Amino acid sequence: MAKRLGILTSGGDCPGLNAVIRGAVLKGDSVYGQEFVGFIDGWKGLVEGNAIPLDRRSVRGLSSQGGTIIGTSRVGPYREPDGGADNIRQRMKRLGIDGIIAIGGEGTANAAKRLFEDGVNIVGVPKTIDNDLAATDYTFGFSTAVEIATEAIDRLRTTGNSHKRCMVLEVMGRHAGWIALFSGIAGGAHAILIPEQPETIEQISEWVRSVVHRGRAPMVVVAEGFTFPDMDQAHSTKGLDGFNRPRLGGIGEVLAPLIEEHTGIETRATVLGHIQRGGAPSAFDRVLATRMGMAVSDLVADEGWGKMVALHGTDIVRVDFADALANLKTVPPQSYADYRQLFG
Amino acid sequence: MAKRLGILTSGGDCPGLNAVIRGAVLKGDSVYGQEFVGFIDGWKGLVEGNAIPLDRRSVRGLSSQGGTIIGTSRVGPYREPDGGADNIRQRMKRLGIDGIIAIGGEGTANAAKRLFEDGVNIVGVPKTIDNDLAATDYTFGFSTAVEIATEAIDRLRTTGNSHKRCMVLEVMGRHAGWIALFSGIAGGAHAILIPEQPETIEQISEWVRSVVHRGRAPMVVVAEGFTFPDMDQAHSTKGLDGFNRPRLGGIGEVLAPLIEEHTGIETRATVLGHIQRGGAPSAFDRVLATRMGMAVSDLVADEGWGKMVALHGTDIVRVDFADALANLKTVPPQSYADYRQLFG
Amino acid sequence: MAKRLGILTSGGDCPGLNAVIRGAVLKGDSVYGQEFVGFIDGWKGLVEGNAIPLDRRSVRGLSSQGGTIIGTSRVGPYREPDGGADNIRQRMKRLGIDGIIAIGGEGTANAAKRLFEDGVNIVGVPKTIDNDLAATDYTFGFSTAVEIATEAIDRLRTTGNSHKRCMVLEVMGRHAGWIALFSGIAGGAHAILIPEQPETIEQISEWVRSVVHRGRAPMVVVAEGFTFPDMDQAHSTKGLDGFNRPRLGGIGEVLAPLIEEHTGIETRATVLGHIQRGGAPSAFDRVLATRMGMAVSDLVADEGWGKMVALHGTDIVRVDFADALANLKTVPPQSYADYRQLFG
Amino acid sequence: MAKRLGILTSGGDCPGLNAVIRGAVLKGDSVYGQEFVGFIDGWKGLVEGNAIPLDRRSVRGLSSQGGTIIGTSRVGPYREPDGGADNIRQRMKRLGIDGIIAIGGEGTANAAKRLFEDGVNIVGVPKTIDNDLAATDYTFGFSTAVEIATEAIDRLRTTGNSHKRCMVLEVMGRHAGWIALFSGIAGGAHAILIPEQPETIEQISEWVRSVVHRGRAPMVVVAEGFTFPDMDQAHSTKGLDGFNRPRLGGIGEVLAPLIEEHTGIETRATVLGHIQRGGAPSAFDRVLATRMGMAVSDLVADEGWGKMVALHGTDIVRVDFADALANLKTVPPQSYADYRQLFG
Repeated sequence: MAKRLGILTSGGDCPGLNAVIRGAVLKGDSVYGQEFVGFIDGWKGLVEGNAIPLDRRSVRGLSSQGGTIIGTSRVGPYREPDGGADNIRQRMKRLGIDGIIAIGGEGTANAAKRLFEDGVNIVGVPKTIDNDLAATDYTFGFSTAVEIATEAIDRLRTTGNSHKRCMVLEVMGRHAGWIALFSGIAGGAHAILIPEQPETIEQISEWVRSVVHRGRAPMVVVAEGFTFPDMDQAHSTKGLDGFNRPRLGGIGEVLAPLIEEHTGIETRATVLGHIQRGGAPSAFDRVLATRMGMAVSDLVADEGWGKMVALHGTDIVRVDFADALANLKTVPPQSYADYRQLFG
Repeated sequence: MAKRLGILTSGGDCPGLNAVIRGAVLKGDSVYGQEFVGFIDGWKGLVEGNAIPLDRRSVRGLSSQGGTIIGTSRVGPYREPDGGADNIRQRMKRLGIDGIIAIGGEGTANAAKRLFEDGVNIVGVPKTIDNDLAATDYTFGFSTAVEIATEAIDRLRTTGNSHKRCMVLEVMGRHAGWIALFSGIAGGAHAILIPEQPETIEQISEWVRSVVHRGRAPMVVVAEGFTFPDMDQAHSTKGLDGFNRPRLGGIGEVLAPLIEEHTGIETRATVLGHIQRGGAPSAFDRVLATRMGMAVSDLVADEGWGKMVALHGTDIVRVDFADALANLKTVPPQSYADYRQLFG
Repeated sequence: MAKRLGILTSGGDCPGLNAVIRGAVLKGDSVYGQEFVGFIDGWKGLVEGNAIPLDRRSVRGLSSQGGTIIGTSRVGPYREPDGGADNIRQRMKRLGIDGIIAIGGEGTANAAKRLFEDGVNIVGVPKTIDNDLAATDYTFGFSTAVEIATEAIDRLRTTGNSHKRCMVLEVMGRHAGWIALFSGIAGGAHAILIPEQPETIEQISEWVRSVVHRGRAPMVVVAEGFTFPDMDQAHSTKGLDGFNRPRLGGIGEVLAPLIEEHTGIETRATVLGHIQRGGAPSAFDRVLATRMGMAVSDLVADEGWGKMVALHGTDIVRVDFADALANLKTVPPQSYADYRQLFG
Repeated sequence: MAKRLGILTSGGDCPGLNAVIRGAVLKGDSVYGQEFVGFIDGWKGLVEGNAIPLDRRSVRGLSSQGGTIIGTSRVGPYREPDGGADNIRQRMKRLGIDGIIAIGGEGTANAAKRLFEDGVNIVGVPKTIDNDLAATDYTFGFSTAVEIATEAIDRLRTTGNSHKRCMVLEVMGRHAGWIALFSGIAGGAHAILIPEQPETIEQISEWVRSVVHRGRAPMVVVAEGFTFPDMDQAHSTKGLDGFNRPRLGGIGEVLAPLIEEHTGIETRATVLGHIQRGGAPSAFDRVLATRMGMAVSDLVADEGWGKMVALHGTDIVRVDFADALANLKTVPPQSYADYRQLFG
């Protein structure tokens, strides 16, 4: 019998969320006769029973639209007093919902795994703009963020050259430096600083000086989660992992004056921020998100509860929540070393 | 001992050629002490011994530049009287070239395979904007073409809606419909017509009528290599494959008046043409091209003559020319069927 | 007393139409308590009494949207049997409409002038993507078209350079060459061909040869309305103005093979077409269109029937329909000569 | 007799500088036989006699390139010991320079005026990305900055909507709010805060609450020079003008937490920064800059020392330095009031 499904989007905004919703609704409706509702503002809507119907007409033209028409929040499903698996199963029963499609990141996958173990029919679509989920080659939103960051580098370079300045661009990437690595390679950055690979301010300054020595204006891309061991106490506070983190503002804003101080080269920081996660998705992300939406409709039709869709090579496959969560996908040391080799 | 290598780019222009050259030169210089020259205008430069030195300075800032600084042409290496393996080996000897890096499409791979079999030290980097080489998940340039085609669809849709017209966009894709499929999904096209899947004008008109019936302006994306069995003799000439091809202009220009005639719905065609293969590459293509350039430097260092670099999943791997050429990578019927399911 | 107004958009699609509608509705509602309806598909909707209410909510988010939410067509208001000033006045009375806001080009302005003379309360907003209305410094849509054409030139140039080809881009401009002139200057074209300035194929070929002689790949931008006196009979048909026009396809498609034939230089044409008039408007056009929408709300409040809004310098002013229609704004010979001087 | 001219670019980077240089060199060479050198890094290069030749070949392809190939700095011409009119005249004599073309902002115009009064042959091209020079309708670079800021607003809005957050975007505009006004109108911002019009945090919070009340996510655009009278002492320091300025970071970063505190609505700030002044110019800016470059070549040919080129309507005209400097062009209260009326 055709199923009735509830979709929710959780966590930070990400280009492609709407395309996933559209892909699931169009294929589900056409092929399986599935019906859909959208829970408003993520798990909150599920827990509170706040849902709107999602039919073909509601998803028209959505592939090119950034954001999510059903809203998102950072609330989790186990919050008191209305959350938890029992409450959610009752809520689903009352709304006539056969299963949940949860589109979200690591936190969502963890919650979904627990709900599944507690007997809730749930499947997932991985969402992380940082591209740091191990189970999938790429996540939608990442390509858009990289395109935006690369355009920013292209723009900053001309100004760096005009003024003979060092330009620092801070991009997203809390635990993994994929956006920094990809945009840095695409934009021809001279230094790419990522959370996986702490570097001393001495090393960074050495790189910057060497670029200036070759007659060029240094372009540094730094992921927000990058830290350096010798960040002094005036600028930092020690994190739980033992590394120092910036006390105020972003790492780019801490780094730029330190580079200037160590090298004598005028240095300016730009923090790209939320611009990376909004607006129209790249075509690549629209296709990936649409395919994931279509595939999750298949997954539900097969009652593949407890699984997520993922990209392997050019194929959309299915993985267990547990596998998806086993490891954070960070930049391998060899990939980082390869990039460094460009600069001898 | 460090090698001296000649790079050539052959066939149609493609965003990312310069990034490949830069990746090879930077890594080859930094890691292996390789030296490079560029043959001017593809095989022609090799055959005629027309080459320029390529050092670090020559490739500065190239990752973001479209085109190829060493030029390209459609000339092959076996042309008389200066071509052929013997002449080319002598030419290489005179120029002190240890090996050739040939960046090109199917024709180039075929020629490179034959040269390799004739004893020339040669490796390859696959280049096809149509993404139709079987040995690699994606080729650089394809992502850029898809982004450009998708932006064109986004623009044409608003005009289609304003005028209640059917809009037809012809994109590249002579033997494979990847650009049409990806940009069509990304842009939410109502019909995607590809070389792999002939459709009658009756079927196409039926789709168009059904979109109008749902109150929308039909958006049709058609790959240049698409044909339809019932194309009448006034518009077509029969190809060697038995299918009809447009007599004049592109398939989009043949299709639009036929759709208008069959449906009574005002229909306009746009042929995107060369815009798809020029200009700044997308960030995705810059990264892929840079990585392929770096990997071909490794390949040469390992004396992996007779092989090409390729993308498998997220890895750059090595494949034999023969494997690369075994099959054209066309859109699988299932992928096409999946897309059709979006529209019930 | 607050007025009730009917808005219509007529003629070819143009980026900024929606922003005009939004500007008029928001200001009219906020400042004057005006009410609005939109006539569907231009004059057709007025003549047939087909209208939808336009309130603040209907115009949300419209400044960035291409196209027109009320549709457009090329139908005029004097068509039989329902058109004409008498019928329209009756129609307005029945719908309780105090005045018409007609957004359109020369045809619309002519019709509006006649309706005004026949006693209909009507005001206008000039719309021509070709920028050829004399009464206004710029029309919205023009800037967007120029940006799109310039990006196309940027892309085509790299391919021209890679292949040492002459690239021909046909842009819009039936009677005036503004899009060709602006995009050609912005893109650094070597020849800009406009309707106002016929040139022989001999002269054009001379320019192309001279560019090749300087070691560059020629970039030619041609407005769709350009003609050359020596276009031969195989390619042309004589227009009412005595000049020859292409028999089939666009002027770019006629020109390219002729250039190739006369110069021996490989030449390729691209016809940009409808892409120029769809999609998101440039910021400049959004501002201009919004300001014109706001100003037309003022104009109606002042009962300035028979007038249009226009841009003079940085100011939005009011002009009579008659003044707006007195002359087509074509590229002055001096401006064209100035551009030619760049190439000595 | 044909003149030999020195060009310099001074102050902050600005899209279009290279197009001005190209326009002057191409026209000067073609029409007047003028010769050009470029002083490296602004006035510094003039004072120190550091110059490079600028011929047709040096300016190839420059119309689309951001930055300035001759560098820029914030150094002035009267610095000791090598500056001052006497030294500069001697320097010009030794280099055989007949006149100076100074491309720069208010500081440059002031210095040029003084040099002219001290007997130096000098003309100017106005450059301010903030568009705040009274003598010209628009300055090049402004359009590019507005396009970039508008794209940022488009992106931030989707994220604001997804999270029901208030998004604050800080754009450039130290003394004049033109970028904020134009991008805010183009992007449909709900509040635009400019230096010319201080507003209390209470008023801003009232606007934000009212937008949320209408069910939308508030978008606030703030110019970097905006201040509010009730900025508390923890966040501000009093400027010479008696207004408070942010103590640390940009005004956007001060404003966002205050809005959140006053309204209870989650609020996030993005500071666009240097991205606004780098990279490829918009087509509009390329045309304006090219025309100004061409016009300054005419101005020099006419020995119009002591004057600048400027845009009036669609014409390039000449103005005295003194007139250009008489007033800062700020946003008129009426324009600001007009925009406010959109929101009733």
